[in-house]
Amino acid sequence: MARQEEEGADVSTHVGVAERLRRGYVFAHDCPSRDVLSHITSRWAVLVLVALMAGTHRFSALRRKVSGVSEKMLAQTLQTLEADGFVDRVAYPVVPPKVEYRLTPMGDAVAARLEGLADWVEIHIGDIVAHRTGHDQATRIAAPLTAAAETVQAADAL
Amino acid sequence: MARQEEEGADVSTHVGVAERLRRGYVFAHDCPSRDVLSHITSRWAVLVLVALMAGTHRFSALRRKVSGVSEKMLAQTLQTLEADGFVDRVAYPVVPPKVEYRLTPMGDAVAARLEGLADWVEIHIGDIVAHRTGHDQATRIAAPLTAAAETVQAADAL
Repeated sequence: MARQEEEGADVSTHVGVAERLRRGYVFAHDCPSRDVLSHITSRWAVLVLVALMAGTHRFSALRRKVSGVSEKMLAQTLQTLEADGFVDRVAYPVVPPKVEYRLTPMGDAVAARLEGLADWVEIHIGDIVAHRTGHDQATRIAAPLTAAAETVQAADAL
Repeated sequence: MARQEEEGADVSTHVGVAERLRRGYVFAHDCPSRDVLSHITSRWAVLVLVALMAGTHRFSALRRKVSGVSEKMLAQTLQTLEADGFVDRVAYPVVPPKVEYRLTPMGDAVAARLEGLADWVEIHIGDIVAHRTGHDQATRIAAPLTAAAETVQAADAL
């Protein structure tokens, strides 16, 4: 985003609704763009969008590809992505019923960006795991909440 | 990711651990790359990483920029990003204590990709909100769980 936007979080609440709808601002807690960003970056949405780049999928095929997702979570994820306009749900008038899911043009644009992120993580996972292992051994973090409280206390002291 | 990987989810469990660490596979439910991907795409991590592209921040300044985040959630998010090697926490030996957070080179690479995604959402939020409004009016979805159950039933019939 533009530099002036990065540095303008504290004045974002002064931006009008019309302006928000024309050009969102994810750093504003009440801007719809933040909700949409959270929809497409949810644990399952990222994998579903990237999986659909391979083409149209039936629900069952998509669930096999996104291993570990429950039917309920996959259905909810697809509904949210369909409501936002990233996925098309196509129900064919045949017996037995045939339903397929595919990316919309907007879904293609978002999926391509998420794939770039997923590719980067896959390629660098070795370095990341190595760093996390060394970090854990060096810091011997207790319960996350305890460490978090300490960080907050340090921040309060600033 | 490569096409053969997109279509190989059902055989991913046959990939060895060494291979997984050399090149991760986010579609495998037990690959560490999926956890890392969920860390950097969490609701607050996306905003924190993009915010830190503007430069080094103190905890309090970062919290002001990422409006709506609690001290506890920001602290936990920063700790996870630090453990994975995306954020450096720098504590200066001064009185009063001074702590700053900044992106590591790996953090820069990830933040740049997340910024591209956030920019896309901000620019297209008008179209997305318009689609969602029309979608809700057209489908008049009842409780999400009910609709999800129907989707699952339809999928089971495939």
